[in-house]
Amino acid sequence: MSHKPGRPFLHIPGPTNVPLPILAATARPTIDHRSAEFGRLGREVLAGIRTIFKTRNPVLIYAASGTAGWEAALLNTLSPGDRVLMYETGQFATLWARMARKLGLEPEFLKGDWRSAVDVAAIEARLAEDRAHAVKAVCIVHNETATGTLSDVAGVRAALDRTGHPALLMVDTISSLASTDYRHDEWGVDVTVGGSQKGLMLPPGLAFNAVSDKALAAAKQARLARAYFDWEDMLAINETGYFPTTPAVNLLFGLKVAIETLHAEGLDAVFARHARAAAATRRAVRHWGLELQCRDEAQASPTVTAVRMPDGVSADAFRAEVLERFNLTLGGGLGPLADRVFRIGHIGDFNDLTIAAVLSGVEMGLRLAGVPHRAGGADAAQRVLAGETEMLRAAE
Amino acid sequence: MSHKPGRPFLHIPGPTNVPLPILAATARPTIDHRSAEFGRLGREVLAGIRTIFKTRNPVLIYAASGTAGWEAALLNTLSPGDRVLMYETGQFATLWARMARKLGLEPEFLKGDWRSAVDVAAIEARLAEDRAHAVKAVCIVHNETATGTLSDVAGVRAALDRTGHPALLMVDTISSLASTDYRHDEWGVDVTVGGSQKGLMLPPGLAFNAVSDKALAAAKQARLARAYFDWEDMLAINETGYFPTTPAVNLLFGLKVAIETLHAEGLDAVFARHARAAAATRRAVRHWGLELQCRDEAQASPTVTAVRMPDGVSADAFRAEVLERFNLTLGGGLGPLADRVFRIGHIGDFNDLTIAAVLSGVEMGLRLAGVPHRAGGADAAQRVLAGETEMLRAAE
Amino acid sequence: MSHKPGRPFLHIPGPTNVPLPILAATARPTIDHRSAEFGRLGREVLAGIRTIFKTRNPVLIYAASGTAGWEAALLNTLSPGDRVLMYETGQFATLWARMARKLGLEPEFLKGDWRSAVDVAAIEARLAEDRAHAVKAVCIVHNETATGTLSDVAGVRAALDRTGHPALLMVDTISSLASTDYRHDEWGVDVTVGGSQKGLMLPPGLAFNAVSDKALAAAKQARLARAYFDWEDMLAINETGYFPTTPAVNLLFGLKVAIETLHAEGLDAVFARHARAAAATRRAVRHWGLELQCRDEAQASPTVTAVRMPDGVSADAFRAEVLERFNLTLGGGLGPLADRVFRIGHIGDFNDLTIAAVLSGVEMGLRLAGVPHRAGGADAAQRVLAGETEMLRAAE
Amino acid sequence: MSHKPGRPFLHIPGPTNVPLPILAATARPTIDHRSAEFGRLGREVLAGIRTIFKTRNPVLIYAASGTAGWEAALLNTLSPGDRVLMYETGQFATLWARMARKLGLEPEFLKGDWRSAVDVAAIEARLAEDRAHAVKAVCIVHNETATGTLSDVAGVRAALDRTGHPALLMVDTISSLASTDYRHDEWGVDVTVGGSQKGLMLPPGLAFNAVSDKALAAAKQARLARAYFDWEDMLAINETGYFPTTPAVNLLFGLKVAIETLHAEGLDAVFARHARAAAATRRAVRHWGLELQCRDEAQASPTVTAVRMPDGVSADAFRAEVLERFNLTLGGGLGPLADRVFRIGHIGDFNDLTIAAVLSGVEMGLRLAGVPHRAGGADAAQRVLAGETEMLRAAE
Repeated sequence: MSHKPGRPFLHIPGPTNVPLPILAATARPTIDHRSAEFGRLGREVLAGIRTIFKTRNPVLIYAASGTAGWEAALLNTLSPGDRVLMYETGQFATLWARMARKLGLEPEFLKGDWRSAVDVAAIEARLAEDRAHAVKAVCIVHNETATGTLSDVAGVRAALDRTGHPALLMVDTISSLASTDYRHDEWGVDVTVGGSQKGLMLPPGLAFNAVSDKALAAAKQARLARAYFDWEDMLAINETGYFPTTPAVNLLFGLKVAIETLHAEGLDAVFARHARAAAATRRAVRHWGLELQCRDEAQASPTVTAVRMPDGVSADAFRAEVLERFNLTLGGGLGPLADRVFRIGHIGDFNDLTIAAVLSGVEMGLRLAGVPHRAGGADAAQRVLAGETEMLRAAE
Repeated sequence: MSHKPGRPFLHIPGPTNVPLPILAATARPTIDHRSAEFGRLGREVLAGIRTIFKTRNPVLIYAASGTAGWEAALLNTLSPGDRVLMYETGQFATLWARMARKLGLEPEFLKGDWRSAVDVAAIEARLAEDRAHAVKAVCIVHNETATGTLSDVAGVRAALDRTGHPALLMVDTISSLASTDYRHDEWGVDVTVGGSQKGLMLPPGLAFNAVSDKALAAAKQARLARAYFDWEDMLAINETGYFPTTPAVNLLFGLKVAIETLHAEGLDAVFARHARAAAATRRAVRHWGLELQCRDEAQASPTVTAVRMPDGVSADAFRAEVLERFNLTLGGGLGPLADRVFRIGHIGDFNDLTIAAVLSGVEMGLRLAGVPHRAGGADAAQRVLAGETEMLRAAE
Repeated sequence: MSHKPGRPFLHIPGPTNVPLPILAATARPTIDHRSAEFGRLGREVLAGIRTIFKTRNPVLIYAASGTAGWEAALLNTLSPGDRVLMYETGQFATLWARMARKLGLEPEFLKGDWRSAVDVAAIEARLAEDRAHAVKAVCIVHNETATGTLSDVAGVRAALDRTGHPALLMVDTISSLASTDYRHDEWGVDVTVGGSQKGLMLPPGLAFNAVSDKALAAAKQARLARAYFDWEDMLAINETGYFPTTPAVNLLFGLKVAIETLHAEGLDAVFARHARAAAATRRAVRHWGLELQCRDEAQASPTVTAVRMPDGVSADAFRAEVLERFNLTLGGGLGPLADRVFRIGHIGDFNDLTIAAVLSGVEMGLRLAGVPHRAGGADAAQRVLAGETEMLRAAE
Repeated sequence: MSHKPGRPFLHIPGPTNVPLPILAATARPTIDHRSAEFGRLGREVLAGIRTIFKTRNPVLIYAASGTAGWEAALLNTLSPGDRVLMYETGQFATLWARMARKLGLEPEFLKGDWRSAVDVAAIEARLAEDRAHAVKAVCIVHNETATGTLSDVAGVRAALDRTGHPALLMVDTISSLASTDYRHDEWGVDVTVGGSQKGLMLPPGLAFNAVSDKALAAAKQARLARAYFDWEDMLAINETGYFPTTPAVNLLFGLKVAIETLHAEGLDAVFARHARAAAATRRAVRHWGLELQCRDEAQASPTVTAVRMPDGVSADAFRAEVLERFNLTLGGGLGPLADRVFRIGHIGDFNDLTIAAVLSGVEMGLRLAGVPHRAGGADAAQRVLAGETEMLRAAE
């Protein structure tokens, strides 16, 4: 295996590039999770993470993959046979529905086309219909990583409100949190699920549940069996900064630095940076003449752009070439999109030149792989990265 | 807060001191968990971890605390209302029993005195009595971290065999694995539970399940609901070196180095080092005239020594003084032993001089805290550390 | 100070970006420099560094800046009042001449225009004239970092040979070594001076002297006073892998990995990578319509490109904007070129996408700073980076 | 080669153990040494290092071994043929004298016995005799690392004052700085020489010169040739925080943290910690019945204790056994003391338990190697480490 000079360009929608100070923090010597020193750390991260979810309520931190956050959300609030309304935005929505079934729930999965965000009207119609309130929870994926679409959480909240439906609202923000605006309290979400390895710029290994008072009340009635993921046990001891089992101490070292890093840049600046990268990426895709998987650019994800390959062209062969030649890792198509799309992650720790490099790499890869396209996409994206969008639009 | 010069001495029974090359490995840039590079890593650690459990069967690796390994073991093999036979060696056995109940099982908890290992005869008697085979699993803690006792796993296996009882045998090796001999296959264990932050010398965040064919067969019938911890999903994809959800990539970087490190020293040398440290520690305790929590030294743990404080003396005040004065972290008493015992961890990455330092620190602490004791325990322990046990015994 | 997301782009001609495994090696715990372990390290790096200089003779490694390597070369081979012939390629040649004077030598400094490589014919003419052999050494800078020119070392050797002149040949390769072909033995160089923080991809702090037998013989007669830099003391103890004073142990840890890294990629691949980056950079510069400081592209440096700003445009203001806006550090003009040129480093650890990013950053900076240029330079450079030079040339 | 578990115990008088936060700082990505960011760092370390030397005057920081600091001191202040008065405390004084001769000076080397500190009376007598003021500088080693003696710098200053002798006073504090009290200004020292890899707890690679106004004035007349070590060039540019050549950027990252670390503990606490470790070590040596190389305990070094082996016993064989068996690195005897003494370093980053471990290791080693001694030295040292010296003395 030959040596790869330079830094790898990791541009999948997670795990994302971890800033060196955060990596260094995760490599500090592990400490006693029952010590006073740990207690200070625990209190800091438990308080700090609330500012990221924009909630005054507790956020539970699990040593687990983000996926486990889905499970914690369901287990703590629901009972066997409960109906949950979900929406098929793509692969991750599908997996969450599958999980719900495995856990003994009855998911009702509104059909989507894997090219669009949640259809709020469809949800509202279904809720209006459900006069018996059989639906106990509405579960949506804020940012569908598989297709690059961002859904309207506040809109779903409004649909619940308009229909006077008491279902809990659960939102997966695994690939949107800390990368685009998200407001757990203001948007009236009951359980928000997050993970460490995306916008939080940490290695994988932490899952989060931000909870509402209503969700906490539901937990008292919920009869799905749970132990490791039980909110009650954890919330009790979290009050002093500690955890019921040994937490992932080193990731918490990193989480503290990650939260500080996000606030040092400023959350709004973080969101603007992601939005600019996403806009630049779409500008390049349009220029190349390729098609976005997300049909309506107004629904396009700020963190990942899924690009459709022309018919008959293998997205995976293209990705392999780009990796081999440029040390640029792109995301592949998931489920039915396998080999049909490639995905460009622009999430976490990057800057404008990183994106310029990625788009140059994609464009050189298109050329080397013989994929039909119009040259100059990376060049066009420069105008967006340099903040000249308005001028550009005028000129188009 | 004043700066603490020198290295901290972390001597609780976990998390343990992580060797610098392992810490450094965990701080490598995170990679794509769907890449070929990850596949190689996955295959290496999935193969390597078997050599630590001494099994030819698969070992499941979860991003989770060790505690979650208990849950995975139970969820994958049992059904609601199943009876499990457990033995009260101490705090961790108690917590596992509590978990079993929360998950909908019926734990039968054989009473222990928190000063002894598992009573094999008591287990055998109970199994012999259970002609209907209501007991579906026997669950024991190999090394009870709370009291410093090591139980006889092969003995429990023999009891199952002698009684012809078909129950599964599940063993928690969280604080014994990779520190004292353990043989999943040879001892006929069905599920062995492990964690990363003890003998494996990693930060916390990984849980393990080593499984037997019988356990895998049981999983096909087991009706407890599970998703994140489901063996079947994970085993299928593990065959190619990958994981169904995003694994704790950086801990797996570390796990690879940890396994290599253990084999570089040699597992038998690792076990001898722990045994020597434990013997030296007990030699000092005896010299000081203090009492071990473990009644029978033949049952004493190789990884942690629990020491009883004289009546009326606060173990926690002593521990606080030792921490403040010598930057030595000792373990506290758990549950009913709170403030009554202190625990000296001698597990993971240490050498003879580390133990000499710890015992000197404890002895100086006893003196400074005014705890009645006979001076010279650390001095006596030197003979054990230097390998002069026999000479010493002759001289006593 | 606001937080800067993403990786900084450090593209000065040194210090260069240090690969993470090399940085990690330099952060290993320091060891006893008199231990057997150190002896092994010492022997490895002393042998390995010869493969980089392409010499079978010893290479001396000093804990010092690269500049000190100039001093070591002069002090060990010359005597007070000795005449040395030097050539004014730019700032670094000027500083070396200034140093020679401070050390009591008589530098004769052939005038250059700071836009060209060494004029071999001028050197040959001067040597031919010097029938008395008053010139004791010819000192040239292989790669003039200030102007971005690469000189013909073999040509200077040939000039010495053709004139039968016995002067020593000394070459500064501080910013060329390990980035472009260099052959100490084959080219008949007597002392080659190197440093750690450029092509070797290490932090600054090591200086090197590769020496010929002739240089070692000269050292026996040389009367300039020296102690720390004395070759004789060091060579004697280097034979066993040790150093006369405490060496920079941690940089030697890094040097071992750096040498391994270079050979893993392959020196020829390393050189090709630098050549490609340099060609891409010049392609962009030509496209922008800016002028290279190096007049003749055949003499252009493979590691640094100096670009002249249009009259009246401040190069430093441009660099400040690029740094502020894109976290891209470019080199400034030195000496008489201050504020007149900016320099793009393409040396050490980078890959094609890094260069694409840098050129995009420069182009966006030109636009933002209002510097007149033709857009599309980064786009044009893509063809060179993707290896389509020939096609491109045909198309021009 | 077998793996060595646990942390190595490095107890030579330098390089010393580098605290992990300092190591981590040295592994930060290298930055442009001409950037504003570097300027801030430069100003911080140039200001901070003065607080360590206790001077208001500049301190020069060289990328070089500590030894080079001797050379810088001599080159910048003296002229060829100048007489310097030195005192033979041991190996390092001898090497400095040898260096002075190599640089063209006339060292006058007052004979010592390698078991004592500088004889102030002998120096005073020689100065009094030198009515012509032929002696231009008095050079002494504050802490003679080879023998474990500490000399009276203020006493030598007083001798110069009493005799009204105008010679410069130069002091090597390489193995004492930041470990025991030192006052450049108050003690009237003209040049203080320091290094990074001892009390400053950094890897090797930095040399220091603290200078007096008188030394700066002398530099204007000094005619020894110098370039890399020239004070004038460096002081001019240091005023803005920069350096004339590329400084050892990464060690400066570390130096900043090292200075902060020392002040966080408090210099007086640092000195007390070293004094306590030294007293504990000597207490153990006395108990063992071994002899200190330093004849008069009042002159004993706070940072290194040299222990004489009984006649006929190889110190090096003992050291090899201790290293092999306990991963404890001790210092060997230098020059005429080779194989006759071993040296215990108690300098830099350590705490009381580290010293307890080291003394246990030495004692176990004495036993294993069959060196005649009285057992219990490590035990006796505990009283000193625990701060019970007074009680102990009363009991003796």
